[in-house]
Amino acid sequence: MAAQEAAVRAQAEAVRRLKQDKADPDEIAKEVAKLLEMKAQLGGDEGKPKFVLKTPKGTRDYGPKQMAIRERVFSAIISCFKRHGAEVIDTPVFELKETLTGKYGEDSKLIYDLKDQGGELLSLRYDLTVPFARYLAMNKITNIKRYHIAKVYRRDNPAMTRGRYREFYQCDFDIAGQFDPMIPDAECLKIVHEILSDLQLGDFVVKVNDRRILDGMFAVCGVPDSKFRTICSSVDKLDKVPWEEVRSEMVGEKGLSPEAADRIGEYVQLHGGLDLIERLLQDPKLSQNKLAKEGLGDMKLLFEYLTLFGITGKISFDLSLARGLDYYTGVIFEAVLLQQENEHVEELVGVGSVAGGGRYDGLVGMFDPKGRKVPCVGVSIGIERIFSILEQRLEASEEKIRTTETQVLVASAQKKLLEERLKLISELWDAGIKAEMLYKKNPKLLNQLQYCEDTGIPLVAIVGEQELKDGVVKLRIVATREEVNIRRESLVEEIRTRTSQP
Amino acid sequence: MAAQEAAVRAQAEAVRRLKQDKADPDEIAKEVAKLLEMKAQLGGDEGKPKFVLKTPKGTRDYGPKQMAIRERVFSAIISCFKRHGAEVIDTPVFELKETLTGKYGEDSKLIYDLKDQGGELLSLRYDLTVPFARYLAMNKITNIKRYHIAKVYRRDNPAMTRGRYREFYQCDFDIAGQFDPMIPDAECLKIVHEILSDLQLGDFVVKVNDRRILDGMFAVCGVPDSKFRTICSSVDKLDKVPWEEVRSEMVGEKGLSPEAADRIGEYVQLHGGLDLIERLLQDPKLSQNKLAKEGLGDMKLLFEYLTLFGITGKISFDLSLARGLDYYTGVIFEAVLLQQENEHVEELVGVGSVAGGGRYDGLVGMFDPKGRKVPCVGVSIGIERIFSILEQRLEASEEKIRTTETQVLVASAQKKLLEERLKLISELWDAGIKAEMLYKKNPKLLNQLQYCEDTGIPLVAIVGEQELKDGVVKLRIVATREEVNIRRESLVEEIRTRTSQP
Repeated sequence: MAAQEAAVRAQAEAVRRLKQDKADPDEIAKEVAKLLEMKAQLGGDEGKPKFVLKTPKGTRDYGPKQMAIRERVFSAIISCFKRHGAEVIDTPVFELKETLTGKYGEDSKLIYDLKDQGGELLSLRYDLTVPFARYLAMNKITNIKRYHIAKVYRRDNPAMTRGRYREFYQCDFDIAGQFDPMIPDAECLKIVHEILSDLQLGDFVVKVNDRRILDGMFAVCGVPDSKFRTICSSVDKLDKVPWEEVRSEMVGEKGLSPEAADRIGEYVQLHGGLDLIERLLQDPKLSQNKLAKEGLGDMKLLFEYLTLFGITGKISFDLSLARGLDYYTGVIFEAVLLQQENEHVEELVGVGSVAGGGRYDGLVGMFDPKGRKVPCVGVSIGIERIFSILEQRLEASEEKIRTTETQVLVASAQKKLLEERLKLISELWDAGIKAEMLYKKNPKLLNQLQYCEDTGIPLVAIVGEQELKDGVVKLRIVATREEVNIRRESLVEEIRTRTSQP
Repeated sequence: MAAQEAAVRAQAEAVRRLKQDKADPDEIAKEVAKLLEMKAQLGGDEGKPKFVLKTPKGTRDYGPKQMAIRERVFSAIISCFKRHGAEVIDTPVFELKETLTGKYGEDSKLIYDLKDQGGELLSLRYDLTVPFARYLAMNKITNIKRYHIAKVYRRDNPAMTRGRYREFYQCDFDIAGQFDPMIPDAECLKIVHEILSDLQLGDFVVKVNDRRILDGMFAVCGVPDSKFRTICSSVDKLDKVPWEEVRSEMVGEKGLSPEAADRIGEYVQLHGGLDLIERLLQDPKLSQNKLAKEGLGDMKLLFEYLTLFGITGKISFDLSLARGLDYYTGVIFEAVLLQQENEHVEELVGVGSVAGGGRYDGLVGMFDPKGRKVPCVGVSIGIERIFSILEQRLEASEEKIRTTETQVLVASAQKKLLEERLKLISELWDAGIKAEMLYKKNPKLLNQLQYCEDTGIPLVAIVGEQELKDGVVKLRIVATREEVNIRRESLVEEIRTRTSQP
């Protein structure tokens, strides 16, 4: 109501003013029409503005500070991927809808479709793995080690304080090709270990399992073939809900016999290292199952390679790890942060999965017209949770983070020196110096110095009448307030020296 | 037909084999069912596979080589933006549909909408400018200098060989805030000049105009107020079609009087520098128009600043420049490549706009509930055309481009040394060396050396029985085939020295 009244008052006032100014009636009519439109836009009786100023549900903007953190994390991850010899590729943000169909099992309902505006039916990518497989099949590539960092989209229930978004980054590293067993798989785990250690996120563990061990286990426990996938996605919930709940889902919702569920229950509580693998290789039931035996044999080989890498301390063979996605065929893994060093942060962020991946030997074949397979194994770093942790840690620490790299502010102490500032800053830019100036004709020196304090610019190059006559520039060091006259021709070198990283 | 026949033949053959093997009838029935399904998938009489393996219309993948070029270009552009003290932000790939409504004039029909799957109505971003304005209004920011590099989406007619895509990158730099006239505007033009010079794309010119000059010109030529925008978008076509065609669109389709069109025709053929600005400031009609006079006054100031920057040689005040988007309010500009140095390339790539921008003082106010304005000026680099040019130039030159940064391949000359290779490569990774190995248990030395040749890896670290006993590694320099024994504890340092960039 208040808004409507205000609009009407404004209208009356406008008409009054127009009359006083002896404007012609056409003008008045136009003005009135404009005001009526404005009133309509105000949205009638509710008085609410009709426009909602927000980002879509489950998404967010990154401001300069968040971007500074994001770039630090990316830089650590990209260094690691490059250290392992990866190339980089990129694919479109959307794919033909049919490219994504039948790849994600129960999660398919979370895919964002585009509106049919004539032409092809499109969907936003749900991960980077399926587009990668499509890329390999389309270009007949049988051999590549690549990384891909890009946003993916899931119409999930967002939980933004814990870093769960509808638009989020994935950082994927994959090795495609026919190789000797478990060598690329071991490298993927080494990469997870390197990145999580490098980012100093606190203690972590990487759970490892194998789809073949799971399938073998389901078979010897008496799960019918047709129920493997759905029982698998029940097991996948064990990191969030207790066994009793998962068991009742299996028996109640999914119609599994209580005996089969109980047999599963015994296995999925097991976790360990080489010793557990050896024990299961002797397990009277599992060792009789071809798939389980293959999986356990490869798991043993994997642990031998991880021992050579010196990282078994943080790897746990865990029979409860299932991972929901349909396309995995062999080794699967997931890295979990164990706890935050800072208790305040722990409460806000929660503890969860920060990386995951596995082997998917059949996915590329689903795209190849002749079904030719390209074995693949890969890892995806879940960057958003890592951002959340680092952001909240930074906030707690009150560390000041710079959001620009500016080396010097070009300033003046007197008026009427805009031209001189423009000339000097242009010289600096052309020499590759990162330089700023205030966009004012006659800024106060104090304001210019304050700007440096606020943004962390370490140097000020001050031009003045006297300096111009003497062919020098006064260079002020913000931290110490020291000022030195530098000959103009030496200024670039002086700035470089004083701002070079040690 | 051929495919169908093949399937039937395969089926008969399978049945025959099964009979010979004395398989049971159930097995045979299963096999037949499988073959029938296969036949159905072959798609009946047409024999086409039912699955189309492609990226959506107007989009493309970037392979490792394209990415290497892309990263070079980004790196040049980001350096420039940082040199000018910009912060960086990011926004979601989609916005609420209403955020984009009414911002793009006639181009709005090119916006990609998402399907209504329950919840908010969303559209893919059409540029980075409107999301930037939404970001400023939402966060009540009145003062920022930022860049943003991201993909935008337009349902346009793609012309991919000329770098026109439906998904493409924009690299935007914008300055928001209330400042003294034309100082930030001049910096935007300096940035365009720096980037295009730096990328060595050949000769270019930056056309500059002002929406106020255009509007003033339309007014003095007798264009009715209501036709300003539509006549403006006709003028915008002058870089692609001759004046006669534009004139007939104005008169025929848009109902402008022939006299008004002819008067416009006289103005839009003018281009020049400070001299032209001075002449138009004396123009008996234009100088009487308030808007045109303001625009011309600011244009004069702009050229004075550009003179101080030393870049007027490549800037042309051009009255035919209009730019289609609705939101511009002052200075507008567009950079055009004049010709390619290489004639072969010119034919393929064409010549076109590679950067554009302008002042938009009203856009943020459209998002603010109280209409508070934040004046903005910015530039957008059209990276896809630049990629096309550089890609085709690279292909023509046959220059070999590396797609990884690997410093050393860990190899072995004898069999059974996988464990030793894994141990050594792990040491190198942990020391920050970029290292690869072949994922084979017993690769041939020749294959390992060939891999280095193919991918440009400069060094090979060879482990062998004798080297292990002696505590050394044989380091081979790929280019010279020289081999030296290096003590294991000195290997990291030796690799660093030999691969450090000069």
